[in-house]
Amino acid sequence: MAESDQTPQVRRAADVEYESVDLAEGLRKGVLLGDGQGTPNFDMRRFVLEPGARVPRHTNEVEHEQFVVEGDYAVGIDEETHTVSAGDSLLIPAGVDHWYRNDTDTRGSFLCIVPKGDDRIEIHE
Amino acid sequence: MAESDQTPQVRRAADVEYESVDLAEGLRKGVLLGDGQGTPNFDMRRFVLEPGARVPRHTNEVEHEQFVVEGDYAVGIDEETHTVSAGDSLLIPAGVDHWYRNDTDTRGSFLCIVPKGDDRIEIHE
Repeated sequence: MAESDQTPQVRRAADVEYESVDLAEGLRKGVLLGDGQGTPNFDMRRFVLEPGARVPRHTNEVEHEQFVVEGDYAVGIDEETHTVSAGDSLLIPAGVDHWYRNDTDTRGSFLCIVPKGDDRIEIHE
Repeated sequence: MAESDQTPQVRRAADVEYESVDLAEGLRKGVLLGDGQGTPNFDMRRFVLEPGARVPRHTNEVEHEQFVVEGDYAVGIDEETHTVSAGDSLLIPAGVDHWYRNDTDTRGSFLCIVPKGDDRIEIHE
């Protein structure tokens, strides 16, 4: 592979901006490494699940690779529910139903890495 | 995109095996999501930098997207040195010189996500 002409990026946690996500209650999204940083193949986002957060059952057209940064929250994948904690990782394949719920008093957050390109979200509840 | 026939994966932090990395002192590597989990496009690994760890200056043929999980350690990219901390993220483009050094008394660790496929490491010191 040819030497890259891309610019290295060091993004400080405090410099990432988070915004609410319309489809869900108590969910915020920040892009750590994305178009703005010149990522070539996949993007790294961080999602925050506030206490009480509800993200409805949905599918995406791309896979998710996730890493739990903090908290203990529920993830539903197909018909199974998993309570995940810091350090756990998840692969949610493209087209598979999933949802999130934070029933605790503390914030949860996770990284979600996706291949670049279009995605379409379908809500299933 | 067609619905996936892949299997969702939930990997618990405690189930990931770590092994020493030959090229570096005090470096261990665990694969969180890789071939064994059926990842389609990119793999998620976690590297641990023990106190005193030294990873020599090198290049890879693929880009790295990294997320600092714990610790405060030094990353050199080209001719610049950055001390990074939990929550920071980095893009190290393909072909760019980089190194790591943990001069603290506490462990550092980071996620490193790479596109699937061959990589070749060249040590430059």
